[in-house]
Amino acid sequence: MIISLSTPLDMHLHLREGAMLRLVAPFSAAQFAGAVIMPNLVPPVDNADRLARYRAEIEAATAPYPFLPLMTLFFRPYDAATLQGLRDQIFAVKLYPEGVTTNSAGGVRDLTTIEPTLALMEALGIPLLVHGESHGFVLDREAEFLPVYERWARTFPRLRIVMEHITTAAALDLLERYPNLFATVTLHHLLITLDDVAGGLLQPHLFCKPIAKRPSDRDALLAAALRGHPKLMFGSDSAPHPIDRKEAAFCAAGVFSAPVLLPMLVELFERHDALDNLPAFVGGNACRIHGLTPPPRTVQLIAESWQVPARYGDVVPFAAGQTLRWRLVE
Amino acid sequence: MIISLSTPLDMHLHLREGAMLRLVAPFSAAQFAGAVIMPNLVPPVDNADRLARYRAEIEAATAPYPFLPLMTLFFRPYDAATLQGLRDQIFAVKLYPEGVTTNSAGGVRDLTTIEPTLALMEALGIPLLVHGESHGFVLDREAEFLPVYERWARTFPRLRIVMEHITTAAALDLLERYPNLFATVTLHHLLITLDDVAGGLLQPHLFCKPIAKRPSDRDALLAAALRGHPKLMFGSDSAPHPIDRKEAAFCAAGVFSAPVLLPMLVELFERHDALDNLPAFVGGNACRIHGLTPPPRTVQLIAESWQVPARYGDVVPFAAGQTLRWRLVE
Repeated sequence: MIISLSTPLDMHLHLREGAMLRLVAPFSAAQFAGAVIMPNLVPPVDNADRLARYRAEIEAATAPYPFLPLMTLFFRPYDAATLQGLRDQIFAVKLYPEGVTTNSAGGVRDLTTIEPTLALMEALGIPLLVHGESHGFVLDREAEFLPVYERWARTFPRLRIVMEHITTAAALDLLERYPNLFATVTLHHLLITLDDVAGGLLQPHLFCKPIAKRPSDRDALLAAALRGHPKLMFGSDSAPHPIDRKEAAFCAAGVFSAPVLLPMLVELFERHDALDNLPAFVGGNACRIHGLTPPPRTVQLIAESWQVPARYGDVVPFAAGQTLRWRLVE
Repeated sequence: MIISLSTPLDMHLHLREGAMLRLVAPFSAAQFAGAVIMPNLVPPVDNADRLARYRAEIEAATAPYPFLPLMTLFFRPYDAATLQGLRDQIFAVKLYPEGVTTNSAGGVRDLTTIEPTLALMEALGIPLLVHGESHGFVLDREAEFLPVYERWARTFPRLRIVMEHITTAAALDLLERYPNLFATVTLHHLLITLDDVAGGLLQPHLFCKPIAKRPSDRDALLAAALRGHPKLMFGSDSAPHPIDRKEAAFCAAGVFSAPVLLPMLVELFERHDALDNLPAFVGGNACRIHGLTPPPRTVQLIAESWQVPARYGDVVPFAAGQTLRWRLVE
């Protein structure tokens, strides 16, 4: 049995640089027609030269796959000339509050000062992608950030705002209230809760930001994804770290899911008898919301079980050791 | 400047066996006149022979310190003859629901079946120490177990019941409602919250069960300890694991605090101007509640800073690398 997916997209992906990029990028390029590439490198991707060089590095690492890197710019208080100059090189601008996640030290300290840049983005039609977490208690951070989304959605009604990697039912509810507010959700947040991270033995390879929440949150996100919620887009947030930064006294945040994304998504949607809604979730919604027209590409999976390796290079993948039911047809 | 503590007790301690016991037990024996020794070894301490051999092993490892091991028996549905026979060898019986923490596989599966044993313990005056967590969502487990404490406290009004290592304000509140209900609390749960475990980088050496909770819970526990709450006893729950079981893909639960307990307790109570209440918290309350009369012993600390080592043997201690203000006078 074969399942064909038309032009699947991963709307939130960390590819890193150098050797790590060369290790991980082919997994995404093999499965997806394109992906939104996060800019939180060190230093961040925040100028034309860095954008061009990073895109070239990604294209080299993903060849010969026909893979479209949708580049993002690290949010700064850019002026009009800068944004206009960069407009054709980017898909969107990604905003990190300062210090909320990996490599966000250069993020925004005072969210009230950036509205001129948001107004420019609105005028230029550049989407705003946001890591929406406060600096509060770890389980409350996403919920505490929601009023910021609401303020921006009201103030800039033509600015497309994407709540990235949402983890709570509360964030999902907000989609119904603002026409210009959208969201991505990861594979792992459709599957795990804080119980998987810290309820039995502590599992650093399941530790990410935002941290997985309650079963009721996971269930709400899964139900929305399975019904192909028109404002919810798949974004893996696959974020590789070498094993010595995960199995360590201070473990970096990030789940490396790239190698298993489509096999596990197909299995999940099949199990819930929702395969009809998978195309909308893994690309269709994104194309409609953002007006994207990536080069068409068909990706196929075959019902043929395989075991996820314990490691790829020095990175432990999501679902390591598990047997999956669907395999990518290369 | 010198601070003298009279007969301090640690009412909840994991000493392990063999080489690990020989490594960690001297830290407790140097600081405390005695400690309540947890029985969740593999196999558990659940018979006279195992009790006698374990006590002898502890005495060998803690000599020449005058250290009183208050032995506990792993809860089973014991009959009257067994409990009577063991009465003089034990301080208390420790109950684990099945599977809730390290080495609890042999714990109680069905809590409703054990009331005959609780009735015997009540009649014999044997305290019941409980790891009170349900099998629910990790942050709700302690709160979900509270009705069990309430039922037992009502059903067995002369049974001394100790809620071990409480982590929530809700558990603390229960102390006011049942005269026969008591609690222990750890040092680390007076200091850390889930933010310290998983709010920045994930810190496996701060991962324990029950997991640290919200700031409001930590603040309530700290306030109760600082005022010398008459039903609250210090119990470290110091629980060493070798580094390769902590910095691992599946990290064992337990914080190894034994080497820093009294220095950090003195510093904490001093900082909050509550040193007068420290003796009640670290032994006084326990002696009054349980009628304990350990051999008197004075332990002294001197205001002389030192840096906690990165490791003791292959175990990473709580507060590794931190500079502490008080040093034990050996």
